[in-house]
Amino acid sequence: MNAPLYPIEQLQLELPELDWITDPNRIERLSQDFSWFSPVLKRQLEGKVADTVVRPRTEDEIRRLVAACARLKVPVTIRGSGTGNYGQTTPLAGGVVLDMTGYGTMLWVRPGAARAQAGIRLHQFEKAALRSGQELRCMPSTYRSATLGGLFGGGFGGVGSINFGPLGAPGNVLGLKAMTIEPEPQVVELRGAEAMRMHHLWGTNGLVLELEIALAPAQPWLETLATFTDFDAALAFADALARAPGLAKREVAFFASPVPDHLTQLAQYLPAGCHAVLSLVAEAGEEALQAMVAAHGGTVTYRRTAEEVAKSNRTLMEYTWNHTTLHALRVDKNLTYLQTSFTPGEHVRQITELTQRYAGEVLMHAEFLRSMDGLLTCSALQLVRFSSEERLDQIIQEHRDYGVRINNPHVHIVEDGKAGGDLAPDILAMKARFDPLGLLNPGKLRHWPVAPRPAP
Amino acid sequence: MNAPLYPIEQLQLELPELDWITDPNRIERLSQDFSWFSPVLKRQLEGKVADTVVRPRTEDEIRRLVAACARLKVPVTIRGSGTGNYGQTTPLAGGVVLDMTGYGTMLWVRPGAARAQAGIRLHQFEKAALRSGQELRCMPSTYRSATLGGLFGGGFGGVGSINFGPLGAPGNVLGLKAMTIEPEPQVVELRGAEAMRMHHLWGTNGLVLELEIALAPAQPWLETLATFTDFDAALAFADALARAPGLAKREVAFFASPVPDHLTQLAQYLPAGCHAVLSLVAEAGEEALQAMVAAHGGTVTYRRTAEEVAKSNRTLMEYTWNHTTLHALRVDKNLTYLQTSFTPGEHVRQITELTQRYAGEVLMHAEFLRSMDGLLTCSALQLVRFSSEERLDQIIQEHRDYGVRINNPHVHIVEDGKAGGDLAPDILAMKARFDPLGLLNPGKLRHWPVAPRPAP
Repeated sequence: MNAPLYPIEQLQLELPELDWITDPNRIERLSQDFSWFSPVLKRQLEGKVADTVVRPRTEDEIRRLVAACARLKVPVTIRGSGTGNYGQTTPLAGGVVLDMTGYGTMLWVRPGAARAQAGIRLHQFEKAALRSGQELRCMPSTYRSATLGGLFGGGFGGVGSINFGPLGAPGNVLGLKAMTIEPEPQVVELRGAEAMRMHHLWGTNGLVLELEIALAPAQPWLETLATFTDFDAALAFADALARAPGLAKREVAFFASPVPDHLTQLAQYLPAGCHAVLSLVAEAGEEALQAMVAAHGGTVTYRRTAEEVAKSNRTLMEYTWNHTTLHALRVDKNLTYLQTSFTPGEHVRQITELTQRYAGEVLMHAEFLRSMDGLLTCSALQLVRFSSEERLDQIIQEHRDYGVRINNPHVHIVEDGKAGGDLAPDILAMKARFDPLGLLNPGKLRHWPVAPRPAP
Repeated sequence: MNAPLYPIEQLQLELPELDWITDPNRIERLSQDFSWFSPVLKRQLEGKVADTVVRPRTEDEIRRLVAACARLKVPVTIRGSGTGNYGQTTPLAGGVVLDMTGYGTMLWVRPGAARAQAGIRLHQFEKAALRSGQELRCMPSTYRSATLGGLFGGGFGGVGSINFGPLGAPGNVLGLKAMTIEPEPQVVELRGAEAMRMHHLWGTNGLVLELEIALAPAQPWLETLATFTDFDAALAFADALARAPGLAKREVAFFASPVPDHLTQLAQYLPAGCHAVLSLVAEAGEEALQAMVAAHGGTVTYRRTAEEVAKSNRTLMEYTWNHTTLHALRVDKNLTYLQTSFTPGEHVRQITELTQRYAGEVLMHAEFLRSMDGLLTCSALQLVRFSSEERLDQIIQEHRDYGVRINNPHVHIVEDGKAGGDLAPDILAMKARFDPLGLLNPGKLRHWPVAPRPAP
């Protein structure tokens, strides 16, 4: 009689036809995301690694894997392409990382909506949508590699949120198909608000197979950088542009000095010490945009038409949202970041006051967007010169005391992040329904008992 | 030697090739607009009529006519199709009515913008735009007959203003070509802010030949009526729908009881005594819309897809904005109306309080839109049970005292209407430049000297 097998070995033995990744270096890499943006998470997640990674290609392969994991009580961590920031794809209790990037077929595109398998890269998704004159409503700056499922599971919004608000606003995500983690997996279609109970839970309360999302009509976007010598003028311009109802736009980002100095690939367009506003405005609005820049004393230093952008394959979108952070961290390893939501209508004052208060330590980068309630506001992804975890905590606490919301990107537990506190009963009901055995990345939900790990 | 000719006779003698309208009944009709909505204007404008109407077909015909009028000092009143409400196309000093509806060629449609001659009907304009997947940003309910020049000269916005604000918001109107009223007429292209100095001046400070406006990408719009038994629930739903950033929409109108009872052509969908919300929402948002209606205790009583609307040639857009007023006046001749701008963010409270205060006398019909500054708010076109001009003035004054803005539709002088007080110097400079002889509908601008009428 043979010695009892480790569950992982048994899994691989039972399902030899699956695409298993066994190289330890690849397993280690596929157990990580961009949590290294945070020195805190980097420390906390050190050494957390999957036992194996599998890359299914069909729903049937996913079903067989899930059934076996459920039977063998092997933890499952779902992963897109790992562009998230909270260690959400890092397994805390080992087991299998389910790499969804092989499961990415576009299913259909209709006027106003499209549906695809969760592992599709957003770049591919948008390419398919563009064929019918449509584009993504919310697009993370990481869209080249990020997956649709990853955006839903760990994303917030991004480019386009200035029109459509966060991805979580009703009407952006129309429905999804999910699988339960059970020995006999069930496949269920969820619509609207019910589907959203799996949103931004980092893949802890359901395995999303397909997503159906609303699209925006595509428009030819003019990409520009406008620079200013005066902070107030730059911010006033950004706010006026973001508000202007007659100027169709997809993106407005504000970089206070010295943030632009960190965007070295754009250095020729960003004079040292400048404040800058990056925007995507419908091409037909260029004259109005230029007039608005001039009225605020700014200079347009960079200007690319939609055609030029398409030809060059270089877009300013890849300098916004978390890409600003990425570019800055590449030139200064001592930086980390914050995520801050301002109060609609108070955002200009709050940004001004907080920029002044932390001059030299917290560098302002704000993104304009609509709130869930449709109000214009900003989210900031400030760069922070890191000195210690204590100082970082102090800065966060001071921001909260000041009256702005911090979505702490230095935590790896769902309840400590954007969810902010206890999970709502409907979220927990979803967890009970879709992951009754508690196998989805155990440890990520504080208030969910971690099943005892099976003996090897 | 012949007796000296009347200037009008001389004009017609000089330009026999023009399309002159001489039938007195037609001249009378073409001297009017929808100012009969107002019993005050009806009285004030009684008997104001052109001496003749001309319907030019080319820029050259317009130039010859204008040159001759300038030489002969004949007043010129520019007219689209007369769907305005301020008597703006009613000549106060006789002369020629310049009917622009024969001058309506579509010039070009490009991604995001289009240009046409001013006399084009908006319906035709939108049809041309739709061929490239685009639509009007701001569409009055009168779009079937209304002209582009009329919308610019006397319109405010309408369907679509919930996204793009009023027509006057920078970026909506891109440029125009205008002709000076001189013996040697000049033709000038004006762009952006400079072009807007002729906006909503009722054709008193320039003769607009062509307009270039921004377009929106077309979307398939679902047309619905949702009815409610509770006022607060209906208004809360309308506001939530209007705000919701993830629900793409073109129109949200709120009809408090008993306004829906006046829309007799929709009677089968509007239970007696109901409050109703009319909306155009992108079809992909239907599930989210239905969920929102249900959450507010409403019932969707009417639902037409974009395809059904196109086939039936019947659209709910023709029950919004001033069409609501029109339908109501058809069933109750004692009604007139108000135009009210609420304070963004306070609009729900203001609508609620004012509806209660004037129950039975001022019937609430509010349209959701974005302000010039991009804030969500409402404009109301309340129905008023007319008793006397004094009472109407009193209601208007009470509204102003309450703190909302009345754009008085019972006046026929530019300065007394939306312009509200003295005209800005740049507007007057435009007048001096484009109408140095003061021939454009003399009397409409209080602060502009009326040239003495030439002796016959």
